[in-house]
Amino acid sequence: MTLGLPLSEQGLIARYFAPLAKDFPGAYGLRDDAAIVETPVGADLVVTMDALVAGVHFFPDDAPADIAWKALAVNVSDLAAKGATPLAYSLALALPPPPSAVFLEGFAAGLAEAQAAFGIALSGGDTTSARGDALTIAVTAFGTVPRGGIIRRGGARAGDSLYVSGTIGDAALGLKLRRGDSDASDWPLADDARHWLVARYLRPQPRIALAAALLAYASAAMDISDGLAIDCRRLCATSGVEATIEASRVPLSAAVSAIIASDPDLLRAVLTGGDDYEILFAVRSGEEAAMEQVAASTGVAVTRVGAITAGAPGLTVLDTDGVSLDLGAGGYDHFAP
Amino acid sequence: MTLGLPLSEQGLIARYFAPLAKDFPGAYGLRDDAAIVETPVGADLVVTMDALVAGVHFFPDDAPADIAWKALAVNVSDLAAKGATPLAYSLALALPPPPSAVFLEGFAAGLAEAQAAFGIALSGGDTTSARGDALTIAVTAFGTVPRGGIIRRGGARAGDSLYVSGTIGDAALGLKLRRGDSDASDWPLADDARHWLVARYLRPQPRIALAAALLAYASAAMDISDGLAIDCRRLCATSGVEATIEASRVPLSAAVSAIIASDPDLLRAVLTGGDDYEILFAVRSGEEAAMEQVAASTGVAVTRVGAITAGAPGLTVLDTDGVSLDLGAGGYDHFAP
Repeated sequence: MTLGLPLSEQGLIARYFAPLAKDFPGAYGLRDDAAIVETPVGADLVVTMDALVAGVHFFPDDAPADIAWKALAVNVSDLAAKGATPLAYSLALALPPPPSAVFLEGFAAGLAEAQAAFGIALSGGDTTSARGDALTIAVTAFGTVPRGGIIRRGGARAGDSLYVSGTIGDAALGLKLRRGDSDASDWPLADDARHWLVARYLRPQPRIALAAALLAYASAAMDISDGLAIDCRRLCATSGVEATIEASRVPLSAAVSAIIASDPDLLRAVLTGGDDYEILFAVRSGEEAAMEQVAASTGVAVTRVGAITAGAPGLTVLDTDGVSLDLGAGGYDHFAP
Repeated sequence: MTLGLPLSEQGLIARYFAPLAKDFPGAYGLRDDAAIVETPVGADLVVTMDALVAGVHFFPDDAPADIAWKALAVNVSDLAAKGATPLAYSLALALPPPPSAVFLEGFAAGLAEAQAAFGIALSGGDTTSARGDALTIAVTAFGTVPRGGIIRRGGARAGDSLYVSGTIGDAALGLKLRRGDSDASDWPLADDARHWLVARYLRPQPRIALAAALLAYASAAMDISDGLAIDCRRLCATSGVEATIEASRVPLSAAVSAIIASDPDLLRAVLTGGDDYEILFAVRSGEEAAMEQVAASTGVAVTRVGAITAGAPGLTVLDTDGVSLDLGAGGYDHFAP
């Protein structure tokens, strides 16, 4: 095995990754076997872990900086949905040999960008050679919430209002553009709108700015990673409630609205497509206005899309005529039977 | 993609992994997007992360329970070397599709065995499909040390005595047996000794029992994962010291002693082979007897193998005639140029 550049494993860590850990004292400059992650007094440490695999979660020929951004962003998105403020992350890379300097430089640069955007630092990790050509990335992210304040999946109750952040479906349609799906070439979009949609797929924006609003008002929350419909069903299953979403209320970007106007069938892809990394959350009846006021100051849009109702766990999505839409499985499952 | 058993990703987690998290309240039964990992008052949280790849760190046809044991053991070994008591771990699995029920049952059973042996619980994680046929496992392990008490790599000073736990080289020669190397068939060993050596390779025993001795007396420590020689050089590099190891003092099992008696050249493989997962540590001059007394009560052998000296970072290994042995690179490096 050769690296394609004259570095040992320790040299590779020192050159590309140690700079990402320099502001986190507990990382010990990545020169030890473990890190210290300190939980501030009065806080709880929130821990999440997501892995990404080339060819499954990203395209092997995506820019290394975009791959790195996504790996960190999808983990920080989980923190954001729990109301947590990002603190640090540990990174394990299984690199197809030989890793190139171009890849490592781009990857480290993407991590640096993402760290600065999310306010998080590298605390440790591992590099190993992969078997085969699929880069595999695992991230464990740490965040803090005020003690006892974590927002759970299971707290939604009948009567709550159901909200989402941002706009839904950009990434699902951006993926179709990135993949070069034949129908996407007909979409009535200018080039900059196409680029924007692809960027929504490649560079998710974790909604960490919403932490204060969620901590104060969310009864339940999770991030939307596998699709609005399937993730809403999961929230309902954990909370033991039913939800109704009005499709006409689901917030769409101008680009997605234009695409759906030309091909209404794509509404289904928008409601079930993955990679939104927006936050789905419930708010107790009567607290909507107060929540919206706090959220408004963050610059992140929040939109009421439906309500939590009593009933067997499940989701109904209504079209503009009040008729239930059939969304099939409703999203992505790695091991769907 | 099909699972080969009628389970979604959530169903798979509920059946095979949730039982491993039942004793850790912060895991929320693996039904949320994140966990709470609580650091006891007066303690620091020690975090380590190691990834294992089929065909690199284990054989694809190793028993699933052995693979699981090893994935957890190598991480707990890092905790042990830092003086930490295991607390919890997060697990990311990239599973070649379709994962089989037989694999998952064996893997979960191996984790359960390892958890019980190490006193650690599953706190969270992620399952995803792999690309290609290489199972990839990342573990982030959490442990606790008394505040400020973590044992670092960089604390060794000239005059310290150098120790190792257990016996060295069992796993390196066990690997040769596991691989069916031709020379291994001639070794003068009974079947049970062969099985024991292979088990030393397949099922590392993290030396968590030594925590009290290390916390009280170790000036520096790390676990030996890539080979005694290369890992000792790393400890010396971080500490800014030189070390001398007397080969005749390196503790060998009866099986390894018998093999070396028949083929003295294998001493080199013993001193440079990986997968020992013993602890290499330094003790201040004058504190050796006190440390040995504490260690004696644990049932884990510790052996003085050499000394830390002033000088440029590096390692000298002396044979019985006091002549320096040439060990080449001295161990395993994933990206050795």
